[in-house]
Amino acid sequence: MTDSPKVLLIMGSDSDLPVMQAAGEVLQRFGIPYEMHIASAHRSPAKAMALASEAAGRGIEAIIAGAGMAAHLAGVVAAKTILPVIGVPMPGGALNGVDALYSTVQMPGGIPVATMAIGKAGAKNAGLFVVQMLALNDGRLAGALKEYRREMEDEVERKDAALQAAGREA
Amino acid sequence: MTDSPKVLLIMGSDSDLPVMQAAGEVLQRFGIPYEMHIASAHRSPAKAMALASEAAGRGIEAIIAGAGMAAHLAGVVAAKTILPVIGVPMPGGALNGVDALYSTVQMPGGIPVATMAIGKAGAKNAGLFVVQMLALNDGRLAGALKEYRREMEDEVERKDAALQAAGREA
Amino acid sequence: MTDSPKVLLIMGSDSDLPVMQAAGEVLQRFGIPYEMHIASAHRSPAKAMALASEAAGRGIEAIIAGAGMAAHLAGVVAAKTILPVIGVPMPGGALNGVDALYSTVQMPGGIPVATMAIGKAGAKNAGLFVVQMLALNDGRLAGALKEYRREMEDEVERKDAALQAAGREA
Amino acid sequence: MTDSPKVLLIMGSDSDLPVMQAAGEVLQRFGIPYEMHIASAHRSPAKAMALASEAAGRGIEAIIAGAGMAAHLAGVVAAKTILPVIGVPMPGGALNGVDALYSTVQMPGGIPVATMAIGKAGAKNAGLFVVQMLALNDGRLAGALKEYRREMEDEVERKDAALQAAGREA
Amino acid sequence: MTDSPKVLLIMGSDSDLPVMQAAGEVLQRFGIPYEMHIASAHRSPAKAMALASEAAGRGIEAIIAGAGMAAHLAGVVAAKTILPVIGVPMPGGALNGVDALYSTVQMPGGIPVATMAIGKAGAKNAGLFVVQMLALNDGRLAGALKEYRREMEDEVERKDAALQAAGREA
Amino acid sequence: MTDSPKVLLIMGSDSDLPVMQAAGEVLQRFGIPYEMHIASAHRSPAKAMALASEAAGRGIEAIIAGAGMAAHLAGVVAAKTILPVIGVPMPGGALNGVDALYSTVQMPGGIPVATMAIGKAGAKNAGLFVVQMLALNDGRLAGALKEYRREMEDEVERKDAALQAAGREA
Amino acid sequence: MTDSPKVLLIMGSDSDLPVMQAAGEVLQRFGIPYEMHIASAHRSPAKAMALASEAAGRGIEAIIAGAGMAAHLAGVVAAKTILPVIGVPMPGGALNGVDALYSTVQMPGGIPVATMAIGKAGAKNAGLFVVQMLALNDGRLAGALKEYRREMEDEVERKDAALQAAGREA
Amino acid sequence: MTDSPKVLLIMGSDSDLPVMQAAGEVLQRFGIPYEMHIASAHRSPAKAMALASEAAGRGIEAIIAGAGMAAHLAGVVAAKTILPVIGVPMPGGALNGVDALYSTVQMPGGIPVATMAIGKAGAKNAGLFVVQMLALNDGRLAGALKEYRREMEDEVERKDAALQAAGREA
Repeated sequence: MTDSPKVLLIMGSDSDLPVMQAAGEVLQRFGIPYEMHIASAHRSPAKAMALASEAAGRGIEAIIAGAGMAAHLAGVVAAKTILPVIGVPMPGGALNGVDALYSTVQMPGGIPVATMAIGKAGAKNAGLFVVQMLALNDGRLAGALKEYRREMEDEVERKDAALQAAGREA
Repeated sequence: MTDSPKVLLIMGSDSDLPVMQAAGEVLQRFGIPYEMHIASAHRSPAKAMALASEAAGRGIEAIIAGAGMAAHLAGVVAAKTILPVIGVPMPGGALNGVDALYSTVQMPGGIPVATMAIGKAGAKNAGLFVVQMLALNDGRLAGALKEYRREMEDEVERKDAALQAAGREA
Repeated sequence: MTDSPKVLLIMGSDSDLPVMQAAGEVLQRFGIPYEMHIASAHRSPAKAMALASEAAGRGIEAIIAGAGMAAHLAGVVAAKTILPVIGVPMPGGALNGVDALYSTVQMPGGIPVATMAIGKAGAKNAGLFVVQMLALNDGRLAGALKEYRREMEDEVERKDAALQAAGREA
Repeated sequence: MTDSPKVLLIMGSDSDLPVMQAAGEVLQRFGIPYEMHIASAHRSPAKAMALASEAAGRGIEAIIAGAGMAAHLAGVVAAKTILPVIGVPMPGGALNGVDALYSTVQMPGGIPVATMAIGKAGAKNAGLFVVQMLALNDGRLAGALKEYRREMEDEVERKDAALQAAGREA
Repeated sequence: MTDSPKVLLIMGSDSDLPVMQAAGEVLQRFGIPYEMHIASAHRSPAKAMALASEAAGRGIEAIIAGAGMAAHLAGVVAAKTILPVIGVPMPGGALNGVDALYSTVQMPGGIPVATMAIGKAGAKNAGLFVVQMLALNDGRLAGALKEYRREMEDEVERKDAALQAAGREA
Repeated sequence: MTDSPKVLLIMGSDSDLPVMQAAGEVLQRFGIPYEMHIASAHRSPAKAMALASEAAGRGIEAIIAGAGMAAHLAGVVAAKTILPVIGVPMPGGALNGVDALYSTVQMPGGIPVATMAIGKAGAKNAGLFVVQMLALNDGRLAGALKEYRREMEDEVERKDAALQAAGREA
Repeated sequence: MTDSPKVLLIMGSDSDLPVMQAAGEVLQRFGIPYEMHIASAHRSPAKAMALASEAAGRGIEAIIAGAGMAAHLAGVVAAKTILPVIGVPMPGGALNGVDALYSTVQMPGGIPVATMAIGKAGAKNAGLFVVQMLALNDGRLAGALKEYRREMEDEVERKDAALQAAGREA
Repeated sequence: MTDSPKVLLIMGSDSDLPVMQAAGEVLQRFGIPYEMHIASAHRSPAKAMALASEAAGRGIEAIIAGAGMAAHLAGVVAAKTILPVIGVPMPGGALNGVDALYSTVQMPGGIPVATMAIGKAGAKNAGLFVVQMLALNDGRLAGALKEYRREMEDEVERKDAALQAAGREA
């Protein structure tokens, strides 16, 4: 991460870190420098908004925001920048993320938040979506994404082959 | 409303006005001066936050915030003031207010939003709740509230009496 | 708690105690004397209502009511007092608190219950909301609340700093 | 309804009357005298509880309680009597009766409310359920119920026959 | 249970037994003889219906039916008898009893099922509701119910007293 | 429909007819004789079960059952036959078919009901699914299905072409 | 499984295997040869579609497709074949299968997916439903199904007998 | 739209057009050429996939996919391209878009779909999100977006000013 970060990962609480790292791992794999920050839409709104409004000036090209319960972080961040903002609803709490999903995805017209699935699958896909955006102007990334897709396909194939082998033995 | 306003009603869109007026009517009935503003957590966040952070200094003692869908307004306002903030989830949209309810009530620990029912009943109760708060230090209001309760009780009684009369005739 | 209590915490069952203590801890931190009672809207309605109707006369200024499932306690209490009543839906049971949330927040027009999030976050915020109400007429409390907000902000900052440090090491 | 009423129909608002009349019509059909009252768990709790606690002494043998939103009426009534209480959740409001259903059916252990479907079907069935209870000690009612079942069965049969006839013509 | 059983407890699977026993314990406490049967609306419909249609003839006065998932048992039983049928939705499965609740309570007009809360609280209340029905014609039971209510109230009182004592010590 | 019917359409109420006709229209289009009956799992269970248990003997090869609310019909029918039973949840009522969906699809292990979407789309697909089953042993039907699929594809293509033409004009 | 497979079991991930094996066990019990494949609608769509479009040509007569979350597999498979496709929604994830259920069952008109319950009960019933389809033209299977139903009924009977015995002892 | 289209709008049915046009209007306003196509994941999967897999080669830089019910279109499209895919869940049907939301947003890890709100607000935001993505490398678009945000803010301000004027008059 010595290069200037291109992606800002922001989360409402350090308890969101295990989920949000799935986004970081994807970015790392594709060699995209990123930074991670904890900032709450409610407990440290000034910081959250400063991070959002200053991001473009610092060379950030996309923001991934993860929060739980009444998850306002992605929307609050999106209101302060014209960078693409991707929202990741956190699981947990009594409603296990349905509240975070609705709070993230049901944005009124004017300020979009690109919402991913609740939890780790969503965080991983947030990372991949950013890579897909950046690949629009980066042939190397596009190639790496195609390779990544092939590997996913191969992995499914390997698992299927193992299943067939297990079936023949049984 | 010549007196300095004691309550700030803030709503995310002018389409929320017919619902939020139910709060204003209650305040008017109890003689509590209030002001109403349209400010969106997403489309005009600076204004929403300025209204919140300057409210106490202007003599405001409570804020009622109404918003729909991913209803971030009450939470965003609550983050910028230590005044009591009451949230009213708006009905409408594909989820008819469940999204607004979850986005308003499921606040994480630290920044409370006192949430009322979805829609007009909630707006009316938001107004009444503010009156109840202010009545803690205002004997006139306390008396008026007790009178209001008696009238509600009487109204139920009148309706029941009408039902009994209709029953006897039938 | 030698001073005359200013807040009544009431819960439907002793199994709600671990959740409701989060409200008590907040009140204690802010030096607000409170009392806690177990009283059920269904199993001991007379007691619940007596607690509610006598609260104002004993100097109580706010009531926090927590209950689960078909959570009628906050509404029943609110019907017997003009003090502000804050409701905390309990998690647990087959519906894990959605039933308690709807039973607490969806009050019909006339009798407001200021509803917080399901579970501990809601109980903590119930305590904070009471402090915010009382701070309207108590400069010391207002100052303490601002200090509390600063500490929350600092804590987020510290956690973010730790995250940055961990990132630099990695 | 010159006879002493055996069933108390109680509803939270006169707007519930069109739904609750479905219960009354069933009782009338089976010749069971009943009375209807409007009393709110929140706006006129004293009346609601007095109706409940005095019902047995007046010869009432069952109570049907209908309410909407945070529907506390049936539970509050059930807490004040050992008569069987049947709850009918009202449709309407932003959640269209899911709130009323959960608030009515999810009673904690100790105070049962026998809950019917949301709306008119539920009100009708509340009436029928009372008839079934009273038929335990009333051979005439038991006979009438069997006849009612036969008529329902015949009605289905007639409709099916009409469908067959329409099919042959087409 | 040497006396002729007055209540039939029927459940769709032996896995429902731990929940349904809460109903049996209540009946036992009140000295009401009952019998328990496993019969499935789907896997042994003939048995389920025979139990239902023969119940009245054997002196049964109420049926408590518990089932999970697409819980058809209570409705199927109710269709074959004019005895009062009380339904208990089982928790568990991917939807944790919401499916069973809707399948039990949303009966169409004509065939009522008196539905209780999901799980053990519901089973216990099913037992109590039957006692309340039978107490209509049994003064001993009515007295025992009043005593039971007093004990519940006392238990709440004892727990509250313990809480006060703990508070004073702390 | 002079041929012996191969499919039994059964619905709980004549109000379900407008939805269920979507299934009949599909069967008619593919030249599969069918019969329609109204029979309720609750109001005419004997008839519903007789239709189910006698279906195979009359040459019926599939049953499509539609019902609303606590939709027990498909499950009750499935319990009385080893013919494939397809369930169609009806929309309407306060829960608009979620209750019917859960009551139809969440069958416990042992007695399957093949469930389609709520409402007309589901009824149409129920018809198509039966055609697909029968096509396993009927080359003409298989051909007709392929043709049907082509027509659907062509219809999408035509609509897309119209959209392109409209776009060019605008 | 030396015979040519008649049923294709396809699942989106090897993590679905423990659930889907419940379908395989049923097919094995009834002596129906089947094959199992892992293929994802998203990660290996070409394979999933090839399996679907080539199935009929290889003698497959039914496809059982299981997937979780945004469960597109069954619908994608159904779009590429006129064989009957049975969908099994997987439990798990933050929404525990409600997402998979809606994604599987709510197919628009034209391409049916016969949906079973979420999880193992659904997988088992998917297997049984295929057996019921194949039994339309296979007297041996029809006999085996009737025997299976008798055994289920006997098992319920045995469990009930054990319950009665336990009751007599107690 | 004489320029080569940069955005592909794809919808499952022509009935989705009134919703999806909200996305087109945004793109038009910002001068971004786009094309619209109707293609169904189920009724014309080959076309849907061809549109997806050929899009990048034709210069498309983003795909907006709208579908209802079991909304597989966005996921199916996303599986065939590494272009960013934005999903818009359609309202309507018995579940009014909750099914479409879950089917669109709950994508498993590997293939992201950036999901917007249900209905027109979501379609409008899908258009805006694409503009935000393209603005990363287009200063003119970035400027236009900032101007758009200012206009939104001004519009809120104008509405608020009108509200204040109306208040002064009243």
